[in-house]
Amino acid sequence: MENRIRDKRFLNKIVTASEAANMIQDGMTVATSGFTPSGYPKVIPKELAKRVENGEEIGITLITGASVGDELDGTLTRSGVIKRRFPYQTHKDMRNKINDGKIKYQDMHLSHVPQFMNYGFFGKIDVAIIEAVAITEEGGIVPSTSVGISPQALKLADKVMIEINISQPTALEGVHDIYMTKKPPFREAIPITKTADRIGKTYMEVDFNKVVAIVKSDISDKVRPLGKIDENSKKISNNIIEFLKDEVSKGRLPENLLPLQSGVGSVANAVLGGLVDSDFENLTCYTEVIQDSMLDLIDAGKVNMISGTSFTPSEEGLVRLMDNMEYYSKYCILRPMEISNNPEVIRRLGVIAMNTAIEIDIYGHVNSTNIMGSRMMNGIGGSGDFTRNGYISIFTTESIAKNGDISSIVPMVSHVDHTEHDVEVVVTEQGIADLRGLSPIERAKKIIENCAHPMYKDKLKKYLDDSIKTSKFKHEPHMIGEVLNWHANFLKFGSMK
Amino acid sequence: MENRIRDKRFLNKIVTASEAANMIQDGMTVATSGFTPSGYPKVIPKELAKRVENGEEIGITLITGASVGDELDGTLTRSGVIKRRFPYQTHKDMRNKINDGKIKYQDMHLSHVPQFMNYGFFGKIDVAIIEAVAITEEGGIVPSTSVGISPQALKLADKVMIEINISQPTALEGVHDIYMTKKPPFREAIPITKTADRIGKTYMEVDFNKVVAIVKSDISDKVRPLGKIDENSKKISNNIIEFLKDEVSKGRLPENLLPLQSGVGSVANAVLGGLVDSDFENLTCYTEVIQDSMLDLIDAGKVNMISGTSFTPSEEGLVRLMDNMEYYSKYCILRPMEISNNPEVIRRLGVIAMNTAIEIDIYGHVNSTNIMGSRMMNGIGGSGDFTRNGYISIFTTESIAKNGDISSIVPMVSHVDHTEHDVEVVVTEQGIADLRGLSPIERAKKIIENCAHPMYKDKLKKYLDDSIKTSKFKHEPHMIGEVLNWHANFLKFGSMK
Repeated sequence: MENRIRDKRFLNKIVTASEAANMIQDGMTVATSGFTPSGYPKVIPKELAKRVENGEEIGITLITGASVGDELDGTLTRSGVIKRRFPYQTHKDMRNKINDGKIKYQDMHLSHVPQFMNYGFFGKIDVAIIEAVAITEEGGIVPSTSVGISPQALKLADKVMIEINISQPTALEGVHDIYMTKKPPFREAIPITKTADRIGKTYMEVDFNKVVAIVKSDISDKVRPLGKIDENSKKISNNIIEFLKDEVSKGRLPENLLPLQSGVGSVANAVLGGLVDSDFENLTCYTEVIQDSMLDLIDAGKVNMISGTSFTPSEEGLVRLMDNMEYYSKYCILRPMEISNNPEVIRRLGVIAMNTAIEIDIYGHVNSTNIMGSRMMNGIGGSGDFTRNGYISIFTTESIAKNGDISSIVPMVSHVDHTEHDVEVVVTEQGIADLRGLSPIERAKKIIENCAHPMYKDKLKKYLDDSIKTSKFKHEPHMIGEVLNWHANFLKFGSMK
Repeated sequence: MENRIRDKRFLNKIVTASEAANMIQDGMTVATSGFTPSGYPKVIPKELAKRVENGEEIGITLITGASVGDELDGTLTRSGVIKRRFPYQTHKDMRNKINDGKIKYQDMHLSHVPQFMNYGFFGKIDVAIIEAVAITEEGGIVPSTSVGISPQALKLADKVMIEINISQPTALEGVHDIYMTKKPPFREAIPITKTADRIGKTYMEVDFNKVVAIVKSDISDKVRPLGKIDENSKKISNNIIEFLKDEVSKGRLPENLLPLQSGVGSVANAVLGGLVDSDFENLTCYTEVIQDSMLDLIDAGKVNMISGTSFTPSEEGLVRLMDNMEYYSKYCILRPMEISNNPEVIRRLGVIAMNTAIEIDIYGHVNSTNIMGSRMMNGIGGSGDFTRNGYISIFTTESIAKNGDISSIVPMVSHVDHTEHDVEVVVTEQGIADLRGLSPIERAKKIIENCAHPMYKDKLKKYLDDSIKTSKFKHEPHMIGEVLNWHANFLKFGSMK
């Protein structure tokens, strides 16, 4: 631990996790490191939970980069410490409390979060808790496996606590590229024109006087298992790769494509995995999370550079990454999420956005967050940042769920996260619908024909035909009183059939 | 006319409007100048319509910057020439044909249009028809009262036609700032850091060899009348100004605010009009359209610089503008819509986005386009570009419509154009709801309490209460089978009451 603290002034600030946790008070707003279950603080949150288990009443607002692991979201949810939460989560205990109305959750575009902090829209940030692998000679904080909102948290919080995690490899040092924008009217252009551009420092700055605790940690990231790549995921992946090839052949994409973004999870992982066996070469990724299949792409020599804001491996991927960090880190840059998800950079680079949907409607609106309109799953995450601003936006979903009791293609989605103005290509295991330049009715026909599951095709066609016939207005015809009956039926009878 | 064509090579290309119109063939894609009814081509479209009236069969796809005047959208709609239309319109004949299913319309984010053209997503552009005030010595095309997509149309079209409109004042020369981005992976940062930055040329480039027609025009822009500023608009304007003052007092906005964007129309005009009598000074506007109230702000010495992509005055405003173009043009820059609506610039400058909604739901989703879910009004225009990427996003609407038969605050909007992730402040004549940092249920309570009309408050409260009680999932509770009944009732019985 002492080796990792190269600015020796910080040695005087070493305290126990319990002493640090004691400085957090009821009603505080706490901003932490962490993005997907990577690089989040672990030992201080656990001690904070213990205080509540011992009878204290503590409630906090928690702001992170994205989802975090059990030691933070799980422990503090079960102990009732988290009262309000921004901007994304995936932990089942937290999800349940959100859906029970016990935690107030605002689901936000990740690109909005750093500037909300900066602009003062969240109010005062009382405490930052940041996981680090080292403190440099000049007092810089070296992040661990993610960056997220850590630079903003360090800058804005009244008090700063650092968890030095000795289980995280020191080889991580050098992989980060820390750059922050100024607030308007003083903001300048972000000088990235290629995925590989490094524009900042390898550490984050902090005012030494604000640091109230340096705490030792040795708990590794509680990463999540990845589903095995199944047949449907492979079909979706193949459909996307065929589409990309076709775009290249039509001169609409360069031979080595443009920087790829891919959402979190098994299908997203499979989509990129498919590229390993493709003919594409010299690829780049400008994305949020660096998942297992990206390590495969590096191993296969397919990718030149990957920019993200976190390493998000599976359990096996984590071992592989930790054992070969020096090797992999040559191909990777971890940036603050203000930069990884920045509309400016995403649009300039022309990112190919590939994200997963819960359901998609016939006119091309996408629900990414609320099952049956009300049940929060995870959150929108960065999907909107990439979808809106990328070169082209692709959404994937399996055409049915719950063994066919749910059609993922519906007359109208029960919650809209991405509008018809944002969704350009829809892909299921059934096929692909390229919606560019199409009117709503043309889109509907194509989505139903190419993407819906056979067991729901006739029902969808009938809805569309009846709507065209009965609606007085035929731009985007609906039978507005019946349009969400599919969802109502599922809630009542357990099936959309 | 000859005086205006300073590169004398172009004199040889002068033809009649009818000769130009004869070069347009059935099935072509035509891209034109024009943004709001300003700076659109007039004489060639009218001649094209005549061919159809004389029995020819001609159908085209029309792409413009935004809405255009009767000589283009009206004439070509009535004659049946327009088969497909991108990306925005306001003409009643066209709107009716879209809603009758006779014109295929894709409603797009304006910021997406120039790059869709550039990326080849619309296919080949056959003809560009551009209104200009002059051709420079070097063969540059000087736009008239708008820029829109003209630079891209000139660059990409196979054939170019120019209407030199001698009714447009030559004093317009110098007001434009023409800059185009490259396609990824070669795109660079757009070097604007202040509203007043000029980064390009005052004219648009064109390949002389592609120019097939120079045509004389003397028809002035068919601008639209502005509604008188009524009591409700004044109340909305006051509510916004009080909000902005409060943000300044809390240190969340500079004293002279940040660049203002304001949508098109009477309410939007009123909102800016309210600033004339406020204490704010040294304002700037980074927006799409320069409306009458912006001229008032210039006259009152309140505004230092206005950047837009078109002058969009009322009939009286047009006279005032034309009579004093030299004066007003010192305070104005007209940019291509690729730049006026660019996410990169909007986010960097920290634009305050103020747009109007058709309806807003209790959780903060906004419908800007489709009345009762199906009836296209105008389109999303640039509202999404500014809302998503600005410093803060404000939506305004009157709390009721149709004398109270419609509540503009509803349980669920019948069409979503802006999601809960994008909408930060809701303003009606009743009051203001600041949604930042609130969970869905908190947002609902605030919107109902502060913004709904008294005649609908209890009904909305009941919907929310019943949803909280009966929905199994309480993150964003809904009674999904009933949630659009308000709209269904209006369609059946003529009232939401």
